[in-house]
Amino acid sequence: MPHDDLSGAILTIGLDAISANYKLLCKQAPGATTAGVVKANAYGLGVDKVAPVLFDAGCRVFFVASADEGIQLRELLPDVEINILNGAPAGHEALFREYRLIPVLNNLEAVGLWRAFCIAQNQPLPAALHLDTGMARLGLPPDELDRLAEDPDQLKGFELRTILSHLACASDAEHPLNQEQLAAFKNALSRLPSATASFAASSGIFLGPQYHFDLVRPGAALYGLCPLTSVPNPMAQVVRLQGKILQVRDVDTPQTVGYGATHRVAGPSRIATVAAGYADGFLRSLGNSGCGYLGGVRTPIVGRVSMDLITLDVTDVSPKQARTGELVDLIGPDNPLDQVAIDADTIGYELLTSLGARYRRTYVGAG
Amino acid sequence: MPHDDLSGAILTIGLDAISANYKLLCKQAPGATTAGVVKANAYGLGVDKVAPVLFDAGCRVFFVASADEGIQLRELLPDVEINILNGAPAGHEALFREYRLIPVLNNLEAVGLWRAFCIAQNQPLPAALHLDTGMARLGLPPDELDRLAEDPDQLKGFELRTILSHLACASDAEHPLNQEQLAAFKNALSRLPSATASFAASSGIFLGPQYHFDLVRPGAALYGLCPLTSVPNPMAQVVRLQGKILQVRDVDTPQTVGYGATHRVAGPSRIATVAAGYADGFLRSLGNSGCGYLGGVRTPIVGRVSMDLITLDVTDVSPKQARTGELVDLIGPDNPLDQVAIDADTIGYELLTSLGARYRRTYVGAG
Repeated sequence: MPHDDLSGAILTIGLDAISANYKLLCKQAPGATTAGVVKANAYGLGVDKVAPVLFDAGCRVFFVASADEGIQLRELLPDVEINILNGAPAGHEALFREYRLIPVLNNLEAVGLWRAFCIAQNQPLPAALHLDTGMARLGLPPDELDRLAEDPDQLKGFELRTILSHLACASDAEHPLNQEQLAAFKNALSRLPSATASFAASSGIFLGPQYHFDLVRPGAALYGLCPLTSVPNPMAQVVRLQGKILQVRDVDTPQTVGYGATHRVAGPSRIATVAAGYADGFLRSLGNSGCGYLGGVRTPIVGRVSMDLITLDVTDVSPKQARTGELVDLIGPDNPLDQVAIDADTIGYELLTSLGARYRRTYVGAG
Repeated sequence: MPHDDLSGAILTIGLDAISANYKLLCKQAPGATTAGVVKANAYGLGVDKVAPVLFDAGCRVFFVASADEGIQLRELLPDVEINILNGAPAGHEALFREYRLIPVLNNLEAVGLWRAFCIAQNQPLPAALHLDTGMARLGLPPDELDRLAEDPDQLKGFELRTILSHLACASDAEHPLNQEQLAAFKNALSRLPSATASFAASSGIFLGPQYHFDLVRPGAALYGLCPLTSVPNPMAQVVRLQGKILQVRDVDTPQTVGYGATHRVAGPSRIATVAAGYADGFLRSLGNSGCGYLGGVRTPIVGRVSMDLITLDVTDVSPKQARTGELVDLIGPDNPLDQVAIDADTIGYELLTSLGARYRRTYVGAG
């Protein structure tokens, strides 16, 4: 959509970095197959660009959230395994067969519906089974697991390809729930027929080999987010966001900046207005909190983030550099995604998936 | 993009409500022309649908942020006035002429560039002049206004169609900055050649006729947001967001819900998992704070908002209603956009512009 050069901000996405991250994750879990999670348009980065790169790096198993996303991915990659985390909506089983989508069965009702469809078609189509071990979100709760273990015939008539569960607190390596969930998952596996076992997402991969099982399924780490809060980020940075300066003003007399007059300039200073705002996914919570970098100098966001604009204090930057048309790093080498997320009081995942449509998107690296 | 019926959430946009809001705003400022602000893809609602509705309601003057948006709008509406708030990037003046885009000149440098272009072309093309009266964001600062007033020849060679400024605190009717800015704007107008004067956006329209001048330019109020914090919302609601229940679980034993285990279920309760998350613009800050409504019953969001999912406590809803496939109002008659924004610790503007791409979008009303 954006006209070349007219865009106020440039989002550069490193496909080579995504490929390198995939390979690093494979090495980190050498005993397991490494799937790729590309839901939410590959965490906002463009599934049409990202999925082929993962395929070229060796990825053959994918996870998305919805059937819509699965259909889109099938058109991109005809020969991979595609799992649909939200399962098959009742009545749409034939669509799953048509596009060879593997539903993640999240409860016994879904198990029954998929089984009935497969029996009616006389086709043992594959499915994944999701056990809830501590999220209370999707997946069979403990009582349904009991009922399934007591009557395993409920799994007959289709191919139980994968059994998975999901960690709630994996980014915190010391959280006691990790071990509790691990024990619950192992116990559940012992009570069910054999299948590919999958437990770890990005963070879980770094909790150690006992969390890896047969299949790991990273998303966030592929896109450069730090998998553990307690260690330096081992992943390559994927995203750079640069905003263009529209105007620089000298403020000599005390005055306020932006909506709500939340920032007051006391002494002489220079304020740069940059063309990116919360409508571009540059979250409003970054107001008076985040920063940009210009020529290696930190330039604090002053005042509120507007819909299309932010204002930065560029007093410490040389006037030759802080001028109309120059690019400011809003996410970049000096302020990685995870740090910007902290400034915004959220997580890098939200920042990634909210990156907006008005940026000029540039993909770099072979892929 | 989303397949019919497969989407996890449905966004319904009332075009008739937008039309009604435009007409109400016209009545509220009877002495002025009412423009329409459709930047950021009409605040996320789809400029291709919204702009023609405003045109049919009588709107002939539009504002967008960037030239990209202007070009898109020109293709939709060949015969309206389109103002570009971020101005013309240097070197792109010919593009503005080609698409008949009116640059908002935000500083003297921009004034000089536009003037030089018009003189070189021997065409007095229209432009708007933006004076900063208290935002310190875009617009001529006071010293540049002084220089312009002293040497008004800088405005010769092009058509000065509009002079505008922007209020920083207009949603708070009692804020002293409103009157200060008004005085500064009036004073500035008295020092410059005559042109269409524009001061009020949505909120300013409700501050009284002295704020109206010749042209008002609402955005937020068109889309149903409340223009003043101190009064009941006079605008018609435009947006309804309904999320589909994927799964309902009974929780009998104490356990935690979601990432980070931030919510603990103490007694027997039922948790519904709904297919909408922060990747859909359902902001993560709604975790443990916002709510949905099901059959008129408030269902609190429990635990964190995930990328694709939220979890609601539906204990108070009849089990017949709280079941897989049912729709929960996430934004709707019981929880209007402004209230959801308060729950998310932000403003309705951010919520609107972040509404995501995975929803099934349904437009209702003639337009």
